[in-house]
Amino acid sequence: MITAEIIAVGSELLTPFRMDTNSLWLTEQLNKYGITITRKHIIGDDKSALIDLLQQAGKRSRLVLVSGGLGPTFDDITRDALADALNLQLIYHDKIFQLIEKLFIKRKRKITENNRRQAYVPEGGAFYLNPVGTAPGLLVRSETCAYALLPGPPSELKAVFLRMEKDLIPGKARPVVHTRVFKLVNVPESQADQRLRTLRMPDNADWSILASYGQVEVHVRINSSNQKEVETFFNEIEDEVKKRMEHHYFGKDDATLESTVGDLLASHKHTLSIAESCTGGWLSERITSVSGSSTYFLMGIVSYSNEAKMQLLSVSEDTLIKYGAVSRQTALEMAKGIMQKSGSDVSIAITGIAGPTGGTGEKPVGTVYIAAIAADGNETCHRFLFSGAREKIRYLATQSALDIIRLQYLGVSLDSAFTVVEQEDRGDK
Amino acid sequence: MITAEIIAVGSELLTPFRMDTNSLWLTEQLNKYGITITRKHIIGDDKSALIDLLQQAGKRSRLVLVSGGLGPTFDDITRDALADALNLQLIYHDKIFQLIEKLFIKRKRKITENNRRQAYVPEGGAFYLNPVGTAPGLLVRSETCAYALLPGPPSELKAVFLRMEKDLIPGKARPVVHTRVFKLVNVPESQADQRLRTLRMPDNADWSILASYGQVEVHVRINSSNQKEVETFFNEIEDEVKKRMEHHYFGKDDATLESTVGDLLASHKHTLSIAESCTGGWLSERITSVSGSSTYFLMGIVSYSNEAKMQLLSVSEDTLIKYGAVSRQTALEMAKGIMQKSGSDVSIAITGIAGPTGGTGEKPVGTVYIAAIAADGNETCHRFLFSGAREKIRYLATQSALDIIRLQYLGVSLDSAFTVVEQEDRGDK
Repeated sequence: MITAEIIAVGSELLTPFRMDTNSLWLTEQLNKYGITITRKHIIGDDKSALIDLLQQAGKRSRLVLVSGGLGPTFDDITRDALADALNLQLIYHDKIFQLIEKLFIKRKRKITENNRRQAYVPEGGAFYLNPVGTAPGLLVRSETCAYALLPGPPSELKAVFLRMEKDLIPGKARPVVHTRVFKLVNVPESQADQRLRTLRMPDNADWSILASYGQVEVHVRINSSNQKEVETFFNEIEDEVKKRMEHHYFGKDDATLESTVGDLLASHKHTLSIAESCTGGWLSERITSVSGSSTYFLMGIVSYSNEAKMQLLSVSEDTLIKYGAVSRQTALEMAKGIMQKSGSDVSIAITGIAGPTGGTGEKPVGTVYIAAIAADGNETCHRFLFSGAREKIRYLATQSALDIIRLQYLGVSLDSAFTVVEQEDRGDK
Repeated sequence: MITAEIIAVGSELLTPFRMDTNSLWLTEQLNKYGITITRKHIIGDDKSALIDLLQQAGKRSRLVLVSGGLGPTFDDITRDALADALNLQLIYHDKIFQLIEKLFIKRKRKITENNRRQAYVPEGGAFYLNPVGTAPGLLVRSETCAYALLPGPPSELKAVFLRMEKDLIPGKARPVVHTRVFKLVNVPESQADQRLRTLRMPDNADWSILASYGQVEVHVRINSSNQKEVETFFNEIEDEVKKRMEHHYFGKDDATLESTVGDLLASHKHTLSIAESCTGGWLSERITSVSGSSTYFLMGIVSYSNEAKMQLLSVSEDTLIKYGAVSRQTALEMAKGIMQKSGSDVSIAITGIAGPTGGTGEKPVGTVYIAAIAADGNETCHRFLFSGAREKIRYLATQSALDIIRLQYLGVSLDSAFTVVEQEDRGDK
């Protein structure tokens, strides 16, 4: 097994405000080749500390990737530190300087004498010009280790890495690890884990579960250069995940819940309209975040006040007085009102208490009613009780609303589908 | 100067999917006491590698904070690794086990024999019970270094750290570094940097700039235990930032652009309504993300189709045919329409092309018109040209819309205020 370490250089990465995100992208690239990351390091602009770390990492790992510290200023120390760590001279390459100069001319700026620093390469090392910035990437080998020095800005790091990749990766230069992501909704991580725990994987494959609010992702990886084996494997796993997770499975890879709902609407040539109260427009925002959503989304109304509910959605004053703005009756009238107004085939309405204030004993913060009218005219309304902060409650409400639309098309009984949510969040119907 | 290192333990942190975010929070806590982080490490569930790292870090730094690896299972190695690294026995504390057991009973679950592992503490070490989980925090000192072992889940890490803090921090136990964040809108980072570069700071203070889409934050820090000095300093800097950044300055610390706009509306007892097309509800979502927004926000309409613009906002068919849905005229009619409908004091309307498709030579992707009607009846409409992906264009449109409402209250001429945006994004009026 080939192992690698990643070092991010820059004192700003040791403040509370900045994260090293480059290492996630680099990890993904290296994982594709079956290379495992064993350690990540973040270090300030401290040359002697970096020299020490480069030497240690080079003894442990076949590959060491370093991001940052290749700029033109005095506190950019990576180039010098590597030369010192490996006891190499720095050689001036006029070709690099000329190319940096061209970039400056193109940007109508004047090159500084400092930029000359970026034209130095440790002896024996290769350089990779930066198509989007001034700092070239450097690839330098010791007896046991290949060091890849990459610029810190993410767009430059990616561009330079992709140029260096084929020289950097030892042995065969094509990806062998393939990943597919299967996505689940409205199921707790623990339950997904329990249902999937016995998935059978060949020795060259593995999987893991990642959970976020209202969504669980199953990441499946296989190490193989046989494309047919890869496809067969993914298809079998997909079938198995679908079988075990039933209606909780909604899509794979780039699919989002909103794009899945959009695809369902588009393929049925149905249109959608949305009435929202506590989610304040978030459900419409998610639906319209999908490019092309204008073919199925007609309108959304954010009826934040009672007057707006009456005026725009024809919710009756009696209903608001008798049952309150947060009630099954109001939600259903909102869904009917927006459908009437828009003439859409499908409609959905959300009303609830997002908090932190406004809760009562009977309707605590987190109480949300979601009413939906399907294309066949079927009307439903479910009560949820979400826990957490205002933002989480609002998000989970949009997530459940999207799922309700999806489940209508799948013909899944909403009452059975939401048992999980209701148990988890103490909601009732 | 006291220096510290932070180690995050967990193989999942070496995948492309998970980041160590605990270290940002810990850095912020330690910085308050004037303690500087010199290195951060991320390491897998590899006991011998962790032992090695704990020993090295303990030689370099006075404080070493470790997060993760304190769970009950076999691959939770932190407790054992520290005992080995310092050559200490692990001592069983029945008190810890009993308290974990209580937690299980409360959660109606059965404790497992595995949990007994969490009751062991390296000899001479102190433990800090976890109010929100099972793993206690451990504080263990070597001759030169204090090791703080903290549970990995962020809520548990924070709770345990706050209990351990006063014992962990050497010497005086009160924060000496104070931070204030000043927030700027619609100004490029480079211009903010240029205007603020000559800010005069005493030796015990510094500042840095952080930029995100359409927003720049100025982080100012001072190291002092003299509360009066701190307040005087922050007030002076605030005045200076306001003076130099003029109307770009909108608030500090917890203020967001949406909360700032909300405060302005509330203090004037004005109400707001919103008509959106390309932003799809995002502006309403941002306005309603502020708790208490129901006192000033009446309604939002997401008029995605031409029919919706005509029906709900009384945009005339002539206007749509003659000028198009993305035009100054349509934006103004949308703003008037929603105001008429809602009876609000202030209204704002957005229409544009978020892309990636739908652009034309005359109106390329990123073209957005924002029309606003102020409480005094003044009507404006500005054209923007934002660059980037669909999400960025949509976000920048909401950001500019919020800023337009704010600037109306400040009495700043919108034409002069938006020169910057327009130059940056090649927008015209």
